[in-house]
Amino acid sequence: MFAPTYLDHNATTPLAPEVREVMLPWLGERFGNASSRHEYGRAARKAIEEARGQVAAAVNAHPSEVIFTSGGSEANNLFIKGVAAQAKPGLIAVSGVEHPCVREPARQLVRSGWRYHELAVDGAGRIDRAAFDTLVSEKPRLVSVMLANNETGVVQDIAPLAHEVRVRGGWMHTDAVQALGRMDVDFRALGVHGLALSAHKIYGPIGAGALIVDKRVDLAPVVAGGGQERNLRSGTENVMAIAGFGRACELVVTARAERMARLETLRAHLEHGLSGLGACIFGFAAPRLGNTSFFAFPHVDGETLVGRLDRAGFAVASGSACSSAHPEPSHTLLAMGVAPELARSALRVSLGAANTRQDVDGFLQALGESLASLRTLTAMVV
Amino acid sequence: MFAPTYLDHNATTPLAPEVREVMLPWLGERFGNASSRHEYGRAARKAIEEARGQVAAAVNAHPSEVIFTSGGSEANNLFIKGVAAQAKPGLIAVSGVEHPCVREPARQLVRSGWRYHELAVDGAGRIDRAAFDTLVSEKPRLVSVMLANNETGVVQDIAPLAHEVRVRGGWMHTDAVQALGRMDVDFRALGVHGLALSAHKIYGPIGAGALIVDKRVDLAPVVAGGGQERNLRSGTENVMAIAGFGRACELVVTARAERMARLETLRAHLEHGLSGLGACIFGFAAPRLGNTSFFAFPHVDGETLVGRLDRAGFAVASGSACSSAHPEPSHTLLAMGVAPELARSALRVSLGAANTRQDVDGFLQALGESLASLRTLTAMVV
Repeated sequence: MFAPTYLDHNATTPLAPEVREVMLPWLGERFGNASSRHEYGRAARKAIEEARGQVAAAVNAHPSEVIFTSGGSEANNLFIKGVAAQAKPGLIAVSGVEHPCVREPARQLVRSGWRYHELAVDGAGRIDRAAFDTLVSEKPRLVSVMLANNETGVVQDIAPLAHEVRVRGGWMHTDAVQALGRMDVDFRALGVHGLALSAHKIYGPIGAGALIVDKRVDLAPVVAGGGQERNLRSGTENVMAIAGFGRACELVVTARAERMARLETLRAHLEHGLSGLGACIFGFAAPRLGNTSFFAFPHVDGETLVGRLDRAGFAVASGSACSSAHPEPSHTLLAMGVAPELARSALRVSLGAANTRQDVDGFLQALGESLASLRTLTAMVV
Repeated sequence: MFAPTYLDHNATTPLAPEVREVMLPWLGERFGNASSRHEYGRAARKAIEEARGQVAAAVNAHPSEVIFTSGGSEANNLFIKGVAAQAKPGLIAVSGVEHPCVREPARQLVRSGWRYHELAVDGAGRIDRAAFDTLVSEKPRLVSVMLANNETGVVQDIAPLAHEVRVRGGWMHTDAVQALGRMDVDFRALGVHGLALSAHKIYGPIGAGALIVDKRVDLAPVVAGGGQERNLRSGTENVMAIAGFGRACELVVTARAERMARLETLRAHLEHGLSGLGACIFGFAAPRLGNTSFFAFPHVDGETLVGRLDRAGFAVASGSACSSAHPEPSHTLLAMGVAPELARSALRVSLGAANTRQDVDGFLQALGESLASLRTLTAMVV
């Protein structure tokens, strides 16, 4: 198989070999429905509870606060829809840079009589504190601000925001899907009521995620039925993925400090090269995840560049909402006040465990060549 | 590892080796987010679309009618909640023998102003047609009747029921999770608007399911966000599980006729033995899935028997809702008019691909011994 250099770890990560090892038996001789009251069921239950402890330990939560879901999107939906189903309609506020799996369920609440508000961010992608203070004075019932942004990597200072929401009797939620394994994530220290995680961003499998939830929150399930996960997430538990998630949490916490220091150095090298090629780097002025670089070359279409780089053997992301047929410029960038034309030029490199200086040098070279060739084309057209 | 004889295939099934084969690469060198626009993303997308074709072919649907979910529970929730979110409140009716993942979301609609009705079944677990006809005259907006019951294996004659609902402008849904691979499942011939499937009941992995849905149905997503699966199921697609699901569909359709004929003979042998031991068999008078036997020995606690059999090396299920700490007698049996005391004695054997006549003989022997020992104990206590 043709294996391009993978520089898109915020989209998904390859499995860690140690994660694969705990998953493999569940593809072979091990199987079982964790609700079954026989040997097979007990073995499945045991694997799930072990993983629950591992996930809880990774974010300083209690195992009983971990609700396993099919992934991060479902975990975010569960908190927002789950709270809304049990509360009287009120004000919900989410930051302008949230992932669609927070923004969409929040917006849908308008149909049930909620007021929806998007919190402003500054040019670097950080929550505008004055706007936030005005918002909390209106006593929102639910506020969601992500811990680290999937596109820019910009990190929000959640704890003081959570404090303001909490003292006014609201519920505070944070999407920590991109943060886990790339910065310290401490459920207690953040002081939030709900926190969403995903396995496949931390060298674990697609198919497992978790909502860490304060037990005082009255939640309704999104998937109702057999009563699994304290009646908050029905459906036969995906033992293999959950076991892998648990192991991935253990590994990523152990490896984090050293790995992120290395990747941050690598990113500095990358961004030095990018600046030399004329890129503007989004969120540069804010604290960012050490592995993420989101940038643009004015007048060069991001999608086109992704295609060129792909053919040159480098897998990176563009800044557009790519699950639709007609890509829209990044909502995150628009919220930061970036002009739509520049937003359409955006490109994201997200580094991971296996990346080396050679990868970055090779990428910079290919990028330079692609840019030169595209600019020649543009010059010819103009 | 201690490997008891597995007789609980309606709870979950072991992976078919051919399914494992298509999944393994996704635990190794293959990985990718199917929304990514580079080589890794395209490969993931290709695997998903191939699986979509395989699932569609297994149930005579068009690939564009297949919405992948994390499993059967989510697929059932998606149809019921998804329809309800887009329609004016009205009457919803589900059979009295539905799985909780149909009954619970349906019941929850009462909060949004819907009227909830449970369709009566007869003593053999079949829909009471007179009661059904009365119900449809009230023009329900949504009716759900499962194709084959998970506990009794009783099969409903869905097509004529769907016809009655359809001609009155309602939506008809069927939970086909237990039916797939154990009987013919034909989306077109059934004439339903929604049909739920699960991979792990057909020798595929836990973590993948599908809602087959008529495109005229206006559905809202249960998990909203990135817009995957025609905006009906957001979240990074579980490529490995979906690929396994597709392959499992292919295999189970090919193997079905021969396998089910064999299992039906095996079950006849089992039930001959059960009758000799004094069991009453639930749903015996109705058409049933060929692999399933649900029975009880009066005055013998089902849970206790499951425990004894487990220690004797046989994995079977009881008839209680086993995900809760305080087991309730089977809702299915109560709906069939079975007395709660007898329902508490229920035991389920569900045969699968690997089971042999030796398995059944060994089980009957262990069952006979367990019964004798429990009856001696009971006699001593009394």
